[in-house]
Amino acid sequence: MSTHSTETKSYELTAEVRSPVRIDATVRDVTFTLDSPASSGGENAGPLPVETVLGALAGCLNALGHKVASEMNLDLRIRRVDIVGQLNPAKFRGQETDERAGFQRIEARVAIEGTATDEEIDAWLGAVEVRNPVLDNLSFPTEVAVTVE
Amino acid sequence: MSTHSTETKSYELTAEVRSPVRIDATVRDVTFTLDSPASSGGENAGPLPVETVLGALAGCLNALGHKVASEMNLDLRIRRVDIVGQLNPAKFRGQETDERAGFQRIEARVAIEGTATDEEIDAWLGAVEVRNPVLDNLSFPTEVAVTVE
Repeated sequence: MSTHSTETKSYELTAEVRSPVRIDATVRDVTFTLDSPASSGGENAGPLPVETVLGALAGCLNALGHKVASEMNLDLRIRRVDIVGQLNPAKFRGQETDERAGFQRIEARVAIEGTATDEEIDAWLGAVEVRNPVLDNLSFPTEVAVTVE
Repeated sequence: MSTHSTETKSYELTAEVRSPVRIDATVRDVTFTLDSPASSGGENAGPLPVETVLGALAGCLNALGHKVASEMNLDLRIRRVDIVGQLNPAKFRGQETDERAGFQRIEARVAIEGTATDEEIDAWLGAVEVRNPVLDNLSFPTEVAVTVE
């Protein structure tokens, strides 16, 4: 199959600023809210941005996990995904630090059920990892251009 | 200031699987939903995982942007953040491809208002970029460990 068989798509998001810590973000006909807890000046109307990253990873593991299981004809269903990320807020706060700003490490545990064998599960997990857009953007550098207007 | 003045924190998320493409993710006392449109087997109850990544970036630009403006005593407010990401779905779909699975490039446009000068805005944007956790996790590699249980 040619590498040009599938076209690159644009995903567009518009975020309306509702407060210094809250946005209402719209993609297509779907709107979702990010906010901070009261302790950080918000009204807790949604997850923090860094928590949202973890949610994106969980959602992609779920969707791709079920897709790959179906393709492989496996009896394998995901019941739950638990994620923990380690982050030092020093750089975000503007303190002098050698620590990076973002998550240093993320661990995802995928709870599954079904009769798939260990070998099938290994093959399944390999495909789920390598084909995962969110995991790819976390694992490898991505060019992000920020402009002001 | 010592690099150990701020402790690394754990951010935890639990995602309950509601369908092959939908999760209800909980962090602290906040729950949010990711889903797919009907064309991808979902009920459109929330953004796609890759759209959620763009939302996380928008939310972090907003929160850190206002925080840095306040620290710098700038008359600068963010009104809106527009983000576009380019992604080729071939690898997600399991097609043979040389393209990466995730976003190839992300562009964020931050619409601001206020009387800050161009020099002030440049200094502000530099700090907002370097201290941004979500931008850091997109720009630089992060170790992500996925296990099955």
